[in-house]
Amino acid sequence: MQAAGPLSGVTVIDLSRILAGPYCTMLMAELGARVVKVEPPDRGDDARHYGPFVKGKSAYFQSINRGKDSIALDLKKDADRAIFEDLLTTADVLVENFRPGTMEKLGYGWDVLHGRFPKLIYAAASGFGHTGPESKRAAYDMVVQGMGGIMSVTGHEGGPPTRIGTSIGDIGAGLYTTVGVLSALFHRAATGEGRKVDVAMFDCQLALLENAIMRYFVSGKPPGPLGARHPSITPFEVFSTRDGFIIIAAGNDALWRKLCEALGRGELAEDRRYLTNDLRNQNVEALKEALEATLTTADTTHWMAVLDSAGVPAGPINNVKQATEFPQVAARNMLVQIDDPVMGAMPFVGNPIKIWGFEDPKTRDPAPALDANRAAILKELGRD
Amino acid sequence: MQAAGPLSGVTVIDLSRILAGPYCTMLMAELGARVVKVEPPDRGDDARHYGPFVKGKSAYFQSINRGKDSIALDLKKDADRAIFEDLLTTADVLVENFRPGTMEKLGYGWDVLHGRFPKLIYAAASGFGHTGPESKRAAYDMVVQGMGGIMSVTGHEGGPPTRIGTSIGDIGAGLYTTVGVLSALFHRAATGEGRKVDVAMFDCQLALLENAIMRYFVSGKPPGPLGARHPSITPFEVFSTRDGFIIIAAGNDALWRKLCEALGRGELAEDRRYLTNDLRNQNVEALKEALEATLTTADTTHWMAVLDSAGVPAGPINNVKQATEFPQVAARNMLVQIDDPVMGAMPFVGNPIKIWGFEDPKTRDPAPALDANRAAILKELGRD
Repeated sequence: MQAAGPLSGVTVIDLSRILAGPYCTMLMAELGARVVKVEPPDRGDDARHYGPFVKGKSAYFQSINRGKDSIALDLKKDADRAIFEDLLTTADVLVENFRPGTMEKLGYGWDVLHGRFPKLIYAAASGFGHTGPESKRAAYDMVVQGMGGIMSVTGHEGGPPTRIGTSIGDIGAGLYTTVGVLSALFHRAATGEGRKVDVAMFDCQLALLENAIMRYFVSGKPPGPLGARHPSITPFEVFSTRDGFIIIAAGNDALWRKLCEALGRGELAEDRRYLTNDLRNQNVEALKEALEATLTTADTTHWMAVLDSAGVPAGPINNVKQATEFPQVAARNMLVQIDDPVMGAMPFVGNPIKIWGFEDPKTRDPAPALDANRAAILKELGRD
Repeated sequence: MQAAGPLSGVTVIDLSRILAGPYCTMLMAELGARVVKVEPPDRGDDARHYGPFVKGKSAYFQSINRGKDSIALDLKKDADRAIFEDLLTTADVLVENFRPGTMEKLGYGWDVLHGRFPKLIYAAASGFGHTGPESKRAAYDMVVQGMGGIMSVTGHEGGPPTRIGTSIGDIGAGLYTTVGVLSALFHRAATGEGRKVDVAMFDCQLALLENAIMRYFVSGKPPGPLGARHPSITPFEVFSTRDGFIIIAAGNDALWRKLCEALGRGELAEDRRYLTNDLRNQNVEALKEALEATLTTADTTHWMAVLDSAGVPAGPINNVKQATEFPQVAARNMLVQIDDPVMGAMPFVGNPIKIWGFEDPKTRDPAPALDANRAAILKELGRD
């Protein structure tokens, strides 16, 4: 079932494909909006053809299009354009993530849309934005990750370039686009006026970097890859254990002393090389060696229990299986079930935005088959 | 100056510290909301003491608290509690990122707040959320990155664990919290009713992973680190050039043929090992070697020009300096200037959410000194 939520009553017409736009409209659907995907006939959203597949159907598409409706329209044909325009009359928000200029070619640029549908909010998520000299460049998640700087601070000094293991280029843009759309909806509730929201994947990479850009302008030097330690707090990094790794975050002197006691290494707390954070930063390598001499004598789960009871912040490096088995996941309904008529039942990630007074159901409706809701939509528009 | 924006007229009372909460309220300030930081006397927000420093003042604090007001209040003292409660009477939103239970101890749990200020929206960003058996665990960005699974898919097979080079644990939570607050504001505009928004950093890590979790449940195997290539498209990865690296994203057969022509390696397009994406995936290592034999004969800028004119999606791996010098940054006002009375003028990241009809000024007001706005705030509350 579709969750009731704070956006109940909001209708989103969704021309977007693949990930950035669909992620935005998925969040809105999770918050109660009705989302109608308008897809090209025959092939539909490209993501319908992305693996992995379960019984021939894309699990990738399912994961970001659950709970939406679908109608197939060819926006180059007059009859379908008339249906699309009827949809816009009933809509609150239009979302697309075409290359800039595409909507203008279709005759649906902002001036046209705003003139004909003055209350409509129009959100465009693109690679480089709707303005500027490089606006029309093609963008892919990895290209934007590379160009926006996040790859330059991720990984290990001297090591190979490292992509963030999730599509942060697309998902980041999806999140900022959602913030833009919701603020425009709030504004419209007060003024009745629709606005255009223009979000670039590349700009969002800079916004996610915040701290690294500030450090560059303060020092004049672009920061390098950060490995797996805090740049200015010690110990605050990944350590080896007997069977894997543990992250220990002893952010101040009191926690440092607690850590030494908990590990049975009280002498380290008295060691002159490690008395203050500043000294620990200077002697970070010797300190790591000293701690790992103890940590590698037992498994991560042992040390997690020891550090938890000592009140020292620490955590394992979970793989995806382990992460989904952490007790908070079930307690907070962070895996929801989708019972698909073809794929069967499978868990997917739930909604991380918990809002008091709205139900957070344990199931979600599957993603629609292409054009699945045509008859119902035409009927609503008085076209049956 | 503070940007006018869609949230003009909204007042946010901000008890949050360090990053996740302040990132949320910074986004709201960028969209026109007034944000009043309520800080503990003497020390203020911990981030005021985080480096790097410019003329003794924290550039870190500046980067996420620009354009906010500050008042110092001791929420354990009756006189200050009375001021705080007056502030809540005038407020639309309260944001905090304390450890769960802190607000209850202060006598400001949701039941109390909602009873006394029924229109107030209360947003809590915490490590593990306000419900569930592990709710009260301490969380730090790196701990949450490790526990939530993103580190397990970032980095190179067999290589050391890799932290995402930006605080995606905090910033991710800040973004989802903003989405929650804005949807609650929209709901309140229709119903007059305030809601509690409960966002956990850990939950947000799962939400950012989406695709990896789906792949785990389809295959039954937790995905490993992805390195710097697309898991199922070839060539779609980082290649070495003479002076560095280039990302090439040739997502289909037509782009593959264009790429071979552009590199003067037409014979590769005819090679039976590389005719389809499936074959290219199977022979990914031989193909990489063949392409790098050519790519390492010239610099990244040379190949960027060649591939741009051939229409093959590609990009450099920019460091932060290079990223901020990309022409779109200036064209889209993605660096704004803050002229601080102590630090002087410095650029900071701009607002990636561009909304038609609202000014996007080239400057921003500096972050407030601790308690800087006390007199004006007390006057507004009729307490002068």
